[in-house]
Amino acid sequence: MNKFDNIKKLIVKDQLKLDCGKTISDFPIAYETYGKLNPKRDNAILVFHALTGDQFATGLNPVTKKDGWWNYALGKGKAIDTDKYFVICANVLGGCMGSFGPSSINSETRKPYGNDFPVITINDMVNAQYFLLKYFEIEKLFCVTGGSMGGMQVLQFVANYPNASQTAIPIACTSNHSAQNIGLNELGRQAIMADVNWKNGKYEETNSSPNKGLSVARMAAHITYLSKKALQEKFGRKLQERDDLKFSFDADFQIESYLRHQGSVFVDRFDANSYLYITRAMDYFDLNKKFDGNLSKAFETSKTKFFIISFTSDWLYPSSENKEIVIALNSIGADVGYVEIESDKGHDSFLLNVPDFLQALGNFLNKSYERLNEKRI
Amino acid sequence: MNKFDNIKKLIVKDQLKLDCGKTISDFPIAYETYGKLNPKRDNAILVFHALTGDQFATGLNPVTKKDGWWNYALGKGKAIDTDKYFVICANVLGGCMGSFGPSSINSETRKPYGNDFPVITINDMVNAQYFLLKYFEIEKLFCVTGGSMGGMQVLQFVANYPNASQTAIPIACTSNHSAQNIGLNELGRQAIMADVNWKNGKYEETNSSPNKGLSVARMAAHITYLSKKALQEKFGRKLQERDDLKFSFDADFQIESYLRHQGSVFVDRFDANSYLYITRAMDYFDLNKKFDGNLSKAFETSKTKFFIISFTSDWLYPSSENKEIVIALNSIGADVGYVEIESDKGHDSFLLNVPDFLQALGNFLNKSYERLNEKRI
Repeated sequence: MNKFDNIKKLIVKDQLKLDCGKTISDFPIAYETYGKLNPKRDNAILVFHALTGDQFATGLNPVTKKDGWWNYALGKGKAIDTDKYFVICANVLGGCMGSFGPSSINSETRKPYGNDFPVITINDMVNAQYFLLKYFEIEKLFCVTGGSMGGMQVLQFVANYPNASQTAIPIACTSNHSAQNIGLNELGRQAIMADVNWKNGKYEETNSSPNKGLSVARMAAHITYLSKKALQEKFGRKLQERDDLKFSFDADFQIESYLRHQGSVFVDRFDANSYLYITRAMDYFDLNKKFDGNLSKAFETSKTKFFIISFTSDWLYPSSENKEIVIALNSIGADVGYVEIESDKGHDSFLLNVPDFLQALGNFLNKSYERLNEKRI
Repeated sequence: MNKFDNIKKLIVKDQLKLDCGKTISDFPIAYETYGKLNPKRDNAILVFHALTGDQFATGLNPVTKKDGWWNYALGKGKAIDTDKYFVICANVLGGCMGSFGPSSINSETRKPYGNDFPVITINDMVNAQYFLLKYFEIEKLFCVTGGSMGGMQVLQFVANYPNASQTAIPIACTSNHSAQNIGLNELGRQAIMADVNWKNGKYEETNSSPNKGLSVARMAAHITYLSKKALQEKFGRKLQERDDLKFSFDADFQIESYLRHQGSVFVDRFDANSYLYITRAMDYFDLNKKFDGNLSKAFETSKTKFFIISFTSDWLYPSSENKEIVIALNSIGADVGYVEIESDKGHDSFLLNVPDFLQALGNFLNKSYERLNEKRI
């Protein structure tokens, strides 16, 4: 039995034309739902995950046996309250938790696609997930939300489907990937491809895996998810189970031990080729360019109510980049709110227990939902 | 003929006890000099290089055939004016440009030391270079200076030899390596050790080299040397010799091509084991701890005049960490000046053409030298 046999999947029969020019059909989108769709079918929230997330946003992830990635924000009585809302979360196209990705079997060769998988984009991811709306017979979502790459999908979703969601909450994201972020992703990709076990992307055929390279990529990324201050406060120069330096290349410092651990547990749950494809999609993301350098145009036919959230210590997707989205929306008189949350926890703030953030998220959702119901009465 | 045969070396006959407990002797320190030592022997400046630098600070590096790393600051008529000053620069202990390091031949095994080389510290580096003062019969230097790891050596030098230099200019450095910086170095080390050609540090015995791993380490480090803004202005999302995205894992973006290039040229001039040892020495650097958590104590018996320089966009060794050194010196009434140079060029500012920096450096040196001569008259 395959570890993905018991997870929910929508097999998309329709054709989907990808940005690269190829067309796919008969492909799986793995998803999970939380809460109940109400009779009016107006309480649905589509949550988009970030680079290494998956559809198991809250509760216990049945595959990894770990907590879902948005446990703090999503669940009964939480900011995204599953007693009120029906939440759908899908594994992105290119992912490795059951959706169509590089580890899927190519029916022609009967082997995993590996690097024969088409290079996909944030646009492709969003279009693939749109099929879930049809499947659940949801005419209009109440909200689309997500952080980091999830936020990019929110922006792309509204650009593609201007009237498919009442509200949109892009969190800690950008409308176009910066040179520094492309550089950081490229570093991760090169670490994977440098691993002798990557085998030009065909490692699954020989039951090997570029674990060392993927681990280095994860270590690099992990440093960027936290702020310098958070790392200093949490680890500083504390030693790892020793009284003094050992004058060796073992993990003398807790920060070394922590990063090695982050790398080693990551390879158990994530596929190296998926890492290549998803980071590539992030680097390709440039909503400005798609709309002739004018981001406002992406949203000008939409009536979606926006709420944008950034974090003070996020240096990966700093407030300045989030504000560019606010400015673009303001310039066309769109309905947009913005909050910059004070947090020392860096980019990862959106995944952590940051009360101001969780409160802002919950308030926006609940007040917006109340207003929508008032209008209908 | 070995590529290092024509470079200057001092063979240190004395014994040097290292921090790890081992004692070394009969070891080479490769060095270069610029300008002339005056008859009073009071115009000597000892320049310490950073992680990947070497003794060829200015002019043409005879080994790499590239410009010296401090060409902008050092030379005839420049900030560190070789018409006035006698400049000594040595390759650090652990380095790979002729000084005693992991690629040196172990006389017992007749093979390169590899990872049998002792783990060295900034303290060891400084003590090894101190032998050059005896060799040149310099009782008191006019100045010790250097940026990044060079700045750490400046601090350690004054702590070890409180009256061996009239002035000291630590640039863009810290008194103790932060968790983020230990993490970034550890990432580079793991990239090297993940390379199948690293062979547990014994790669030279089989004429192989962990070039892929070292290249990834260099890419990671290079991102940290520049500011987000500098990367954005220089590269942004510009494509590399193509009109549109290629939907592949080639270097679509200029930033990718640039980083790959930085990685590939680095492996031609630098030894992977030296990279491991020198980054380890940086991580071990903690002058505060050495003086019971009170940095001021490191300098309390010194009359050295300090001038500390930091750069606004340096996120590796931010102004805040440089200011901690200023505060420690001020708290004991030491003679200390400080300037924060406005620059978008990140940590690399000290290596680049940043006029305000070069002017501040030159002015401090020239005015200090004039004053010293006035006092003597």
